[in-house]
Amino acid sequence: MLTDVQIAVLGGDARQLEIIRKLTELDARLSLVGFEQLDHAFSGAVKEKLEDVQWESLDAVILPVPGTNPEGKIDSIFSNEVIYLHEELVKRTPEHCIYFSGISNPYLDKVMTESNRELIQLFDRDDVAIYNSIPTVEGTIMMAIQHTDFTIHGSNTIVLGLGRVGMSVARTFHHLGGKVSVGTRSSEDIARAVEMGLNGFSLEELKERVKHTDLLINTIPALVVRPEIIAHLPSHALIIDLASKPGGTDFRYAEKRGIKALLAPGLPGIVAPKTAGLILANVLAQLLKEKREEKKS
Amino acid sequence: MLTDVQIAVLGGDARQLEIIRKLTELDARLSLVGFEQLDHAFSGAVKEKLEDVQWESLDAVILPVPGTNPEGKIDSIFSNEVIYLHEELVKRTPEHCIYFSGISNPYLDKVMTESNRELIQLFDRDDVAIYNSIPTVEGTIMMAIQHTDFTIHGSNTIVLGLGRVGMSVARTFHHLGGKVSVGTRSSEDIARAVEMGLNGFSLEELKERVKHTDLLINTIPALVVRPEIIAHLPSHALIIDLASKPGGTDFRYAEKRGIKALLAPGLPGIVAPKTAGLILANVLAQLLKEKREEKKS
Amino acid sequence: MLTDVQIAVLGGDARQLEIIRKLTELDARLSLVGFEQLDHAFSGAVKEKLEDVQWESLDAVILPVPGTNPEGKIDSIFSNEVIYLHEELVKRTPEHCIYFSGISNPYLDKVMTESNRELIQLFDRDDVAIYNSIPTVEGTIMMAIQHTDFTIHGSNTIVLGLGRVGMSVARTFHHLGGKVSVGTRSSEDIARAVEMGLNGFSLEELKERVKHTDLLINTIPALVVRPEIIAHLPSHALIIDLASKPGGTDFRYAEKRGIKALLAPGLPGIVAPKTAGLILANVLAQLLKEKREEKKS
Amino acid sequence: MLTDVQIAVLGGDARQLEIIRKLTELDARLSLVGFEQLDHAFSGAVKEKLEDVQWESLDAVILPVPGTNPEGKIDSIFSNEVIYLHEELVKRTPEHCIYFSGISNPYLDKVMTESNRELIQLFDRDDVAIYNSIPTVEGTIMMAIQHTDFTIHGSNTIVLGLGRVGMSVARTFHHLGGKVSVGTRSSEDIARAVEMGLNGFSLEELKERVKHTDLLINTIPALVVRPEIIAHLPSHALIIDLASKPGGTDFRYAEKRGIKALLAPGLPGIVAPKTAGLILANVLAQLLKEKREEKKS
Ligand SMILES: NC(=O)c1ccc[n+]([C@@H]2O[C@H](COP(=O)([O-])OP(=O)(O)OC[C@H]3O[C@@H](n4cnc5c(N)ncnc54)[C@H](OP(=O)(O)O)[C@@H]3O)[C@@H](O)[C@H]2O)c1
Ligand SMILES: NC(=O)c1ccc[n+]([C@@H]2O[C@H](COP(=O)([O-])OP(=O)(O)OC[C@H]3O[C@@H](n4cnc5c(N)ncnc54)[C@H](OP(=O)(O)O)[C@@H]3O)[C@@H](O)[C@H]2O)c1
Ligand SMILES: NC(=O)c1ccc[n+]([C@@H]2O[C@H](COP(=O)([O-])OP(=O)(O)OC[C@H]3O[C@@H](n4cnc5c(N)ncnc54)[C@H](OP(=O)(O)O)[C@@H]3O)[C@@H](O)[C@H]2O)c1
Ligand SMILES: NC(=O)c1ccc[n+]([C@@H]2O[C@H](COP(=O)([O-])OP(=O)(O)OC[C@H]3O[C@@H](n4cnc5c(N)ncnc54)[C@H](OP(=O)(O)O)[C@@H]3O)[C@@H](O)[C@H]2O)c1
Repeated sequence: MLTDVQIAVLGGDARQLEIIRKLTELDARLSLVGFEQLDHAFSGAVKEKLEDVQWESLDAVILPVPGTNPEGKIDSIFSNEVIYLHEELVKRTPEHCIYFSGISNPYLDKVMTESNRELIQLFDRDDVAIYNSIPTVEGTIMMAIQHTDFTIHGSNTIVLGLGRVGMSVARTFHHLGGKVSVGTRSSEDIARAVEMGLNGFSLEELKERVKHTDLLINTIPALVVRPEIIAHLPSHALIIDLASKPGGTDFRYAEKRGIKALLAPGLPGIVAPKTAGLILANVLAQLLKEKREEKKS
Repeated sequence: MLTDVQIAVLGGDARQLEIIRKLTELDARLSLVGFEQLDHAFSGAVKEKLEDVQWESLDAVILPVPGTNPEGKIDSIFSNEVIYLHEELVKRTPEHCIYFSGISNPYLDKVMTESNRELIQLFDRDDVAIYNSIPTVEGTIMMAIQHTDFTIHGSNTIVLGLGRVGMSVARTFHHLGGKVSVGTRSSEDIARAVEMGLNGFSLEELKERVKHTDLLINTIPALVVRPEIIAHLPSHALIIDLASKPGGTDFRYAEKRGIKALLAPGLPGIVAPKTAGLILANVLAQLLKEKREEKKS
Repeated sequence: MLTDVQIAVLGGDARQLEIIRKLTELDARLSLVGFEQLDHAFSGAVKEKLEDVQWESLDAVILPVPGTNPEGKIDSIFSNEVIYLHEELVKRTPEHCIYFSGISNPYLDKVMTESNRELIQLFDRDDVAIYNSIPTVEGTIMMAIQHTDFTIHGSNTIVLGLGRVGMSVARTFHHLGGKVSVGTRSSEDIARAVEMGLNGFSLEELKERVKHTDLLINTIPALVVRPEIIAHLPSHALIIDLASKPGGTDFRYAEKRGIKALLAPGLPGIVAPKTAGLILANVLAQLLKEKREEKKS
Repeated sequence: MLTDVQIAVLGGDARQLEIIRKLTELDARLSLVGFEQLDHAFSGAVKEKLEDVQWESLDAVILPVPGTNPEGKIDSIFSNEVIYLHEELVKRTPEHCIYFSGISNPYLDKVMTESNRELIQLFDRDDVAIYNSIPTVEGTIMMAIQHTDFTIHGSNTIVLGLGRVGMSVARTFHHLGGKVSVGTRSSEDIARAVEMGLNGFSLEELKERVKHTDLLINTIPALVVRPEIIAHLPSHALIIDLASKPGGTDFRYAEKRGIKALLAPGLPGIVAPKTAGLILANVLAQLLKEKREEKKS
């Protein structure tokens, strides 16, 4: 339980609702800033204006997934209020107060450093990245179904990378009946692909491997789907690039060659905001409990 | 090979293109009626007007999936020509000439009976129904992803029926990480569900089973998702009804209760026309080869 | 519940213990004949001699899986008592009394016919056959591991037949990483194999298919693994024949060619007697409950 | 190809045969020491006595999986010759000559250090460990089937550790229909277990989790199956401990409590020597090719 733990939730999207639900269930006391247009009321949670929050008594501050914008503004889909995370506010929180976001940016980093507060970027954590790979895979499936005229079942599918997302993608497309090959730079990952019943090959051979590829799904955050690779793809192939911007594909060349190539947006928040929120809520609750235990002892 | 076999393909959609491709590969001679707006040319296939076809020398006639409309008109997405399958034309074909469609209707049945020609409805065949279950499943996955805010992975999923489509749906949703239970009327199907690693239960218990259901997927062509079932579903549940019109769900009651319920259209032709065409092309080619062998011997 | 239902259990092996356990749990009253060497006592069950049973008040009689031997003798591994199922005894039971065994034989058939009592052969039921396919598959896996020097993973595996056992075998060997092809006589089963992610082929092509086969698993109760098939197998291949005696393999020829070929014994009772007993117990209990409902109404 | 590469293979078991086969296929020139009882001849490989080997021209020396015994003796199942790997011999090989074994020991380490030669322990490599997890899993399945009277399908199975072996074990038992939970110390592994469709839990909760466990499979090389864990297991449970000697189980206590606990021997060489040999052969060949490229450039 998180009884008597005082938390401010500042803005965000549907994912924050799962966090709020979870934390109130655990008996934390919440100040919700930027939720005044939300119909729903949570017992134990008070909707407040930024200036009404008791900053001095906060144990944790929960920011939206993107943290702030480059100027420190916090977005909320449930509010028209303009919310800024000013350094002065942060400095008013107790030293032990922890900040949570999905990712960070130079503004947020600077504020945290200068005020000497801890920021936990949840998306940096391996557990969160792996849980998030689940909705990411489902979003990828949806894209593959929508943007092709053939089934995933029976299609020659190459997955690049066997990291946290790549492993989930590769296994799931295999289970859907795709003929999956995994391209990777490590001999260990090739072995794992084989053990999983897939083909594994070295990225160096990619050019020779793509000739009969129907689906090329990239998870490597580096330019691997280069022009010479694209040039060898059949014209009906679809490239789905999951790596975060700018992706690992030469999109300009793909367009020139007439190969459809899609840079996936952040899928979890789009295809399954509720699940994506639950993932964050569970990890957050776990971390807050651990911090509490530490403090006690 | 189908050398010297003379076939007319009358109208249709993208699926017919795969059939045409396959049959020309096998060296059949094709008359294509209703394809004049199609850019592509197939060697061995001639685009003709209905009246120019040599009906007397045809070995087979391939109609679109729906056959004709109730008045005998044949639709083609590649043509503005108005094409009717008149009884006189059918009677001009040799007695051994076989007609193929996906499904039939009273008009088509009547023409076939009166002219004493054989019509093979491909969708009636078990093999076609099973192959078609593959794109059907992918369409169902797409619908489930689009119409919920949670992942299939981890969701409580009930599949009704373990026939040709139900078995494919149940296994695939299990492989996606859904917690799948199968409701069926036969003890044999319950055993198969258990063997597959799923839960199996008798349809009689459906009411007690739906309380925590997130996804309810029906494949039974009978009214099984009745008001008392819907009344027990949680409000966030999604019903996807795959059974052909009018489906097996009381949609009126679902709407009243505020439960989202979707009657799936014909998914194979929508989500994967190329695969759907290939399925028909392969079975057709196989059947034509067999007929040819029979005739020879 | 089976309160007040009077049942005699006559002989058998470890599987009967699960039946006894289940039925006593459901509050049935049991006479156990041929269990005097069993240490364990079940509340609600009385160990008796054959002659002490109250035949006139029995609602059901449970025989061992093989029923009787050809002369009517009932085997029990828990007893030295000689037990015969004489026709007179059967005739003393009430007309509604039902007999259960796994399989039957001419003796048992005759006794049942002449006394006009119902015999339910549990192994004839589809649900039992499918549940039993589970331990059968595990026994097959064990045999494949023990009798080869290579892994199932990665091995070219052919499964003949896609019936109740064949489907379970094919899927499980696929899940273990085997490269599974299914040989069958029906186009429907080929389609199902493909949908499951396996290769499917017509039995007519078997000869051409076995050239690189490592494991050949037969479930078809007919001579399909004929000399010309065996002659095409590589010398290291292993044949496991699951079909009931005499199997579907020309064992004499296999031996001559030096190909290892094994006729599987009844696997469920050997590799997992407890599970095999539970399967029978559950179906039996369900049937007895249904019979009871019928009688009541 | 490995044309002109000069390699000595010293002793070993069936696994070496696959290595010899692979290397001769790649056109290497082999001296086989300790194989005089082997019937088979390999073209390009010469059976020699230790003293006849041209040590000065060797590019690689392949030892058996265990390397040597603590005194430097090399075992061979194909020979009665007594073979010692003396330091003098090693020093006669060129400086670039590489030694290969599965594992090492103080004797071997010392010889290598003092002669300043490179020893590659293949079992230390991640790729080999992952490939070897495949036969390890099959051996584990065999043990589970042989030592229980219930099926893996449907059994409550706990796998401890989600490393190179644990991941393969967990997935495969899940695919066999086991209800698999994974106990691990890292939140990342819990997330991966969940993503795989399994339960994941922290090792700290192990005591509470084992109450209904049928199969407990340990892959953690540390004492985790401690007395208090064993005390909570049901009496029919089976413990299979895969961790290398002395395993991670308190076997003494398990015996006292009457719980069957098995310390698995080295399974790959036992259940699938051919596959185990192929794994080593492929990695060896790959490494030798890379070394050769390096040397060239
Ligand atoms: N669109 C979305 O919804 C979405 C969702 C989740 C993640 N993502 C993005 O997807 C990407 C992958 O995420 P992840 O969590 O799977 O990361 P990860 O676990 O770090 O995996 C990255 C993979 O890429 C490989 N790799 C990295 N640099 C490479 C290079 N230069 N050459 C070859 N291989 C290289 C890594 O191999 P090694 O193991 O050898 O380093 C690893 O296999 C990230 O960009 C992430 O932001 C997008
Ligand atoms: N929307 C699409 O894209 C799409 C695609 C393919 C198929 N479909 C439709 O989906 C439906 C199922 O197709 P299918 O090929 O799977 O058919 P199927 O193989 O005949 O399976 C039908 C299933 O429903 C059960 N069933 C039938 N009547 C029942 C009743 N009165 N009560 C309880 N169970 C009953 C059957 O059980 P028994 O085995 O006990 O008879 C069987 O399990 C059809 O309506 C078909 O037209 C739609
Ligand atoms: N050793 C053991 O422990 C064990 C355990 C269980 C079962 N069994 C035995 O295994 C066998 C299969 O059992 P099951 O329950 O799977 O039976 P099943 O469901 O009837 O399946 C039999 C399969 O064989 C095919 N088949 C039958 N006759 C054929 C023929 N002449 N040519 C080609 N295919 C033919 C059937 O095809 P269609 O569908 O086209 O008819 C079907 O696919 C039986 O002999 C059974 O006694 C042994
Ligand atoms: N019997 C056989 O045939 C056979 C075959 C292959 C392997 N093995 C043996 O099996 C064992 C596992 O091999 P592997 O290749 O899977 O090793 P691995 O990849 O290193 O995995 C070891 C696992 O144990 C965990 N672990 C290690 N120390 C721990 C501790 N003190 N507390 C909690 N968890 C701990 C690791 O967790 P972290 O990731 O958090 O470190 C990891 O999950 C080894 O002993 C190996 O020799 C036996």
